[in-house]
Amino acid sequence: MEKRVYNFSPGPAMLPLPALEEAQRDLLALPGVGISAMEISHRSKTFTQIIEQAEANLRKLLAIPENYRVLFLQGGAQMQFAMVPMNLLRGTGKSADFILSGTWSNKAIKEAATQGDVHVAWDGKESNFNRVPTADQLDLNPDAAYVHYTSNETIQGVQFPTEPDVGDVPLVCDASSDILCRPVQVDRYGVLFACAQKNAGPAGVTIVIIRDDLIDKAADGLPSMLRYKTVADGKSLHNTPPTFAIYMVKLVTDWLLRDIGSLAKMEEINRGKVKMLYDAIDQCGGFYQAHAEPGSRSLMNVAFRLADPKLDSVFLSEAEEQGLCALKGHRSVGGCRASIYNAMPVEGVQLLHDFMIEFSGKH
Amino acid sequence: MEKRVYNFSPGPAMLPLPALEEAQRDLLALPGVGISAMEISHRSKTFTQIIEQAEANLRKLLAIPENYRVLFLQGGAQMQFAMVPMNLLRGTGKSADFILSGTWSNKAIKEAATQGDVHVAWDGKESNFNRVPTADQLDLNPDAAYVHYTSNETIQGVQFPTEPDVGDVPLVCDASSDILCRPVQVDRYGVLFACAQKNAGPAGVTIVIIRDDLIDKAADGLPSMLRYKTVADGKSLHNTPPTFAIYMVKLVTDWLLRDIGSLAKMEEINRGKVKMLYDAIDQCGGFYQAHAEPGSRSLMNVAFRLADPKLDSVFLSEAEEQGLCALKGHRSVGGCRASIYNAMPVEGVQLLHDFMIEFSGKH
Repeated sequence: MEKRVYNFSPGPAMLPLPALEEAQRDLLALPGVGISAMEISHRSKTFTQIIEQAEANLRKLLAIPENYRVLFLQGGAQMQFAMVPMNLLRGTGKSADFILSGTWSNKAIKEAATQGDVHVAWDGKESNFNRVPTADQLDLNPDAAYVHYTSNETIQGVQFPTEPDVGDVPLVCDASSDILCRPVQVDRYGVLFACAQKNAGPAGVTIVIIRDDLIDKAADGLPSMLRYKTVADGKSLHNTPPTFAIYMVKLVTDWLLRDIGSLAKMEEINRGKVKMLYDAIDQCGGFYQAHAEPGSRSLMNVAFRLADPKLDSVFLSEAEEQGLCALKGHRSVGGCRASIYNAMPVEGVQLLHDFMIEFSGKH
Repeated sequence: MEKRVYNFSPGPAMLPLPALEEAQRDLLALPGVGISAMEISHRSKTFTQIIEQAEANLRKLLAIPENYRVLFLQGGAQMQFAMVPMNLLRGTGKSADFILSGTWSNKAIKEAATQGDVHVAWDGKESNFNRVPTADQLDLNPDAAYVHYTSNETIQGVQFPTEPDVGDVPLVCDASSDILCRPVQVDRYGVLFACAQKNAGPAGVTIVIIRDDLIDKAADGLPSMLRYKTVADGKSLHNTPPTFAIYMVKLVTDWLLRDIGSLAKMEEINRGKVKMLYDAIDQCGGFYQAHAEPGSRSLMNVAFRLADPKLDSVFLSEAEEQGLCALKGHRSVGGCRASIYNAMPVEGVQLLHDFMIEFSGKH
């Protein structure tokens, strides 16, 4: 068999090996069905069981309350940057509050501005997006249509330790890069959405967890594909869903429940992994510089630079030789970034830790 | 190995076995890369090669002219039912012509009507959508923003023998269920789109072939994800694309080029397959009734009824016992339907042919 490397890509990212192995085993024909998960009709009994199990797994892992719907859509987080304001802002006469904590919240603001008024409730630009705001720094409008925030900024490696308190205004969360990395209190959200390709499955499916009362808010003139109500009424089968990607979400959440056990346990493992990398940075006395401030550091993405940027390319190529791949920082910020989502094994992080220390000793 | 059945599902549908086998072989790690096609970054060199090869294969098979772009999107044909009028109708002050030939063109009309004026240039309802119009039956507006038609109506099993002549007005084609089943003259189209899950790959990716001059027509106020220009400028990588589904499009088009050779050859095979089924219907003297009229019959979907509808369920269950699956007609029309896309082997169609004759003899 082809050797697998440790893939530190920010997404699409590593998937749990047992999920890939099951997909591989059954790729030509699901047991007892004789049809691949890539070929099965979305109206078949078999696929109904798959999508229902994927939802049940998410409900169990995240303890999703009864009055929330779980939807499977396409288009990634960026389609949600459009759909949220199309459904909840356009035509309301209200404005929406945005917490600007990095690249992804910035993109969300631009898209929402095509649909209505937006207000930036906090702007992290001055500190180069190296931290998230404290509660008293938020300039929230109690009459906003909603408050949008990004629980984890993949590029800057900053993560909210807990969701902001926004009172009775619906809280909209882009949890694309940290869903399922730890428990969250779903009843504090109005909408929680995430593309799958970091912690939940392959690229091509987006999970939207939405409170009942927000489903049917869209004004007239919106095509049905862009209305949450169409998706909810059709149980995500109003049109052909990305069947294979949903099957993979089932396999990944099966793995979380079976091999990890709970999100509390997953968080514990993730905390151990991220500590290893920040420990390596601290131990090397300035050789590496962490981007994010303590208290705002992400469990999922560790963004750092080498004090001597001339060493960047040496670091990346020597790491790759050891099977530590895709450590290059995002083109917008440079440097390095280790994305260590749920499926990144502890051994991969340990290897990177050891490599970082060895590399700093050598140079 | 699990036995594979013949899956006559209208989509998601059968995929070519060699494509599935290659995907299975490399599912844990692409050769020389060490990362699954489901895990690989869309910005990696490996994925760039995959998406470029998928496009090159499509260009070769369809002889796509230089002044057309090939885009990979999400959301299926129904998202295109929204995106086409959002980009080409909204704000133009014009109306769009629609040829109403079945269920899918009807859906497209409803979505376009949320964005502007629509005009039905022909309505097949009176003949229960059992044929496509002749040229002289079309009431076309020479000043229309575009003409939309559905080259193959999956549910009714009717297909245009060739594209309608619409003069200088851009022709928009929903080719979801017949793309790649035969050669087409791409330069007669403005936009040709197709979800993948019939002839081109798994559900979750949509192919859009669009003429250069139509890419940047959208009025202001449209989120960037819904603009063709964003997708074209970003070479379909403006956001994370459905990487694995695009990889499968590459494998399916590899198969077409390598094992079939050309779309002319594919058409010849498809003509042979569909003839077998209509021959079976004809031979059984009224036992089966074809829905589509000769001259409008689809190469891809054969819709038929049993003269005695009480036998429907017996037919379907006995067929399934022989490994001939998913032959039930769409819930909106009832009866039976055999979808025989490119990847349905001749042997599967032969078996169904034999079964139909045997079944009619028995009952």
